Amino acid sequence: MNSLSELLPGKVSTEPEDLLCYGFDASGLEGRPGTVVWAEDTTDVVKVMRYSHERGIAVIPRGAGTGMTGGSIPASGAIVLSTERMNRILEIDKENFTVLVEAGVINGRLQRELERHRLFFPPDPSSLNFCTLGGNVAENAGGARAVKYGVTRDYVLGLEAVLPDGRTITTGVKTAKGVVGYDLTRLLVGSEGTLAVITKIRLKVLPLPEDVITLLALFGGLEQSGEAVQRIISEGIVPRTLEFLDSWTIRAVENYKSIGLPKDTEALLLIELDGPPSVITRDAEKISVICKKLSGEIIMAENELARMKLWEARRAVSPALFHLSPAKINEDIVVPRSRFPEMLRRLRDLSESSGIRIVNFGHAGDGNIHVNLMVDRADKEQYAKAQELVKEIFRITLELEGTISGEHGIGLTKQNYISMEVPPAELELMKKIKQVFDSRNLLNPGKIFLSLCSR
Amino acid sequence: MNSLSELLPGKVSTEPEDLLCYGFDASGLEGRPGTVVWAEDTTDVVKVMRYSHERGIAVIPRGAGTGMTGGSIPASGAIVLSTERMNRILEIDKENFTVLVEAGVINGRLQRELERHRLFFPPDPSSLNFCTLGGNVAENAGGARAVKYGVTRDYVLGLEAVLPDGRTITTGVKTAKGVVGYDLTRLLVGSEGTLAVITKIRLKVLPLPEDVITLLALFGGLEQSGEAVQRIISEGIVPRTLEFLDSWTIRAVENYKSIGLPKDTEALLLIELDGPPSVITRDAEKISVICKKLSGEIIMAENELARMKLWEARRAVSPALFHLSPAKINEDIVVPRSRFPEMLRRLRDLSESSGIRIVNFGHAGDGNIHVNLMVDRADKEQYAKAQELVKEIFRITLELEGTISGEHGIGLTKQNYISMEVPPAELELMKKIKQVFDSRNLLNPGKIFLSLCSR
Repeated sequence: MNSLSELLPGKVSTEPEDLLCYGFDASGLEGRPGTVVWAEDTTDVVKVMRYSHERGIAVIPRGAGTGMTGGSIPASGAIVLSTERMNRILEIDKENFTVLVEAGVINGRLQRELERHRLFFPPDPSSLNFCTLGGNVAENAGGARAVKYGVTRDYVLGLEAVLPDGRTITTGVKTAKGVVGYDLTRLLVGSEGTLAVITKIRLKVLPLPEDVITLLALFGGLEQSGEAVQRIISEGIVPRTLEFLDSWTIRAVENYKSIGLPKDTEALLLIELDGPPSVITRDAEKISVICKKLSGEIIMAENELARMKLWEARRAVSPALFHLSPAKINEDIVVPRSRFPEMLRRLRDLSESSGIRIVNFGHAGDGNIHVNLMVDRADKEQYAKAQELVKEIFRITLELEGTISGEHGIGLTKQNYISMEVPPAELELMKKIKQVFDSRNLLNPGKIFLSLCSR
Repeated sequence: MNSLSELLPGKVSTEPEDLLCYGFDASGLEGRPGTVVWAEDTTDVVKVMRYSHERGIAVIPRGAGTGMTGGSIPASGAIVLSTERMNRILEIDKENFTVLVEAGVINGRLQRELERHRLFFPPDPSSLNFCTLGGNVAENAGGARAVKYGVTRDYVLGLEAVLPDGRTITTGVKTAKGVVGYDLTRLLVGSEGTLAVITKIRLKVLPLPEDVITLLALFGGLEQSGEAVQRIISEGIVPRTLEFLDSWTIRAVENYKSIGLPKDTEALLLIELDGPPSVITRDAEKISVICKKLSGEIIMAENELARMKLWEARRAVSPALFHLSPAKINEDIVVPRSRFPEMLRRLRDLSESSGIRIVNFGHAGDGNIHVNLMVDRADKEQYAKAQELVKEIFRITLELEGTISGEHGIGLTKQNYISMEVPPAELELMKKIKQVFDSRNLLNPGKIFLSLCSR
């Protein structure tokens, strides 16, 4: 029994099966931690950080491990600090439209709990039934509804977090407004667990929208779907989701989990409107007219069950594609919405010239494309070519005024590319900020920045 | 002619009248700069920063000087760097709902320009016809519409800024989503010109709301107005403004600029709804019923002219109160909306027990109260008592889970109080972040943090 087990009885494991399970995440990468700790409250987190700080042991905070860029892959011998047991919804303040949660609360659980109070938390990453809100904050998670409602950052009012040396900080306010000192709250949002361990989160929530309409628009070509997106937005309509699936994605989903999507469709938009019934009915009609003019076919979900089924299809995309090609390389570029059709064309050209299949789906409404390079890792030559292709995709993305990561962050998998987007002076500032919080580089070391890598 | 004039011909002054004019701001405080520079573009800003960095001269970035906490008051002998001439709207991207502006563009000018394109930038500080967007970003300005639309921070996608050593950085993205490295953009938002000189701003804008309804609700008592706010919100209605004026404020406005407000009213709410006509008409009726049940009287603005007049009254509040008492102490506390009536009661009690008149108005919808202590600076004893009262007001604000500044920031006037809200560990992080950006403490020195004061 080591002294961490004495400090935290019943909350620590060094069993090989635990070290294995907590060594990998959705990125497909693997590491080998020395210890796994399941903290149950902030005091436990403080104990872990003090312990590790005294001994110079790295700590990797971990929510549900649904991250796509390896943000929770442990450095060898490190302590994986799981927030899974910190899963209490501490306060739902209906009068002030705020909630206070522990970091390990599952996004989908909060969604359902809020609905019972007629409240609404918009950010909905596809992994919402598994991922934790702490992880959402650490990665600044997005989701389908970002086109209308923004991302996690836009809902975080304040945080409690534990610094690498074990001191607890609280940031932000309980109110919509607040300008007292620098914005430590948003500095922690999206910092990928490298600055502090987030323990509690104060979120802004909204009144539940009065009603929702869900539409499926099927197109015979990519161009028409891209054009439909542009026309919908330029009508002044802001749907709450405007999701895009290309033909390969549609087929993969149908093969994985037969839902009844027409396999011969070239592109599909999953459109959802929310708001007062009179307004969304009117907007749904406008959208229908726009899509039909572009030879699109419109299917409207008749009831909640049909609606759930459509979303089931959308959320099955990621596992379905993994099923198709376990070694696929998955990126999450964003381009300004108006460049979305051009980006899809450029991706198709790249796929044709390279011979590597590129499957695309994502959030057309905000220009966020999940680009999947379907490769076989055993084929060394092809895999190397795919790596080059990723670089070229990022180059084009930046040429079109986009960003190389909309939702997944940098983690380990995008470290080689961060300098394509972030110039040296800005990177230097970021690294110095890392040093301010974590001078000994013990908290999630080796993530985001190449030169701080200690794996 | 000093060498700064040689570097920037026609853009530099050391004339006493300029030094006087650029020595004060809306806080009523004064300083005495050594030089005033009117930069015309980023290159000019770079020249100033390099010049000052080489010589160890402090630089104070300045928009329109409308700040309330002395954020632009120059350290003695410093260079005041005005962005007034950096006033170009560089891009209005209607397809992607973004704009790119120089830091010196006036908020109201952008608002009007956007309206012509059927676009909308929500943040509307009362000084919108004078204040610059650079200043808005530096202070994270709020405004009346924050209750529905949030504050400046929620609209800043990316920035160009010049570091104290003269290097130019660009932060953020042109897209709604983006998680590549730490969020330098929001770190600069609200940093009160202490980290970098903001030169260009990429803002998110929205489609112009279809229609607007403006209502005035008059009440015989403070309690009823507070209760009305709670009932409106708990109906699930989110007006775009929900402004509050107490009886003293109403009388001050009427005396300053007779608009026809009934002087015998104890409290007034200025309520504005925006959205599709059918929805806001329905909501306006609901609000009307709520207010009448609380014995309120409802006046609806019949046309755009009437609407403008109501807003003219609201925006005249600040000058009107200055007119009443030039030495007034003006704070901008925020409490969670549900504590708004309690805060008003506590303020009334404090006023009665201290004998100092406290006049309140503000943004009831988000709990942001502009608390004005009407004092005579010549009366030393009263002024000292008022200072004590401010501290007590902040103590109560924090007791009610609020914040000591919703919109105005810390600047100089709230430095003595920042540690009431921000604990030592967080303050230490902030000061270290200041050092990361400005190791020689040359950019707007002495603001926000007491111990960095070099005035």
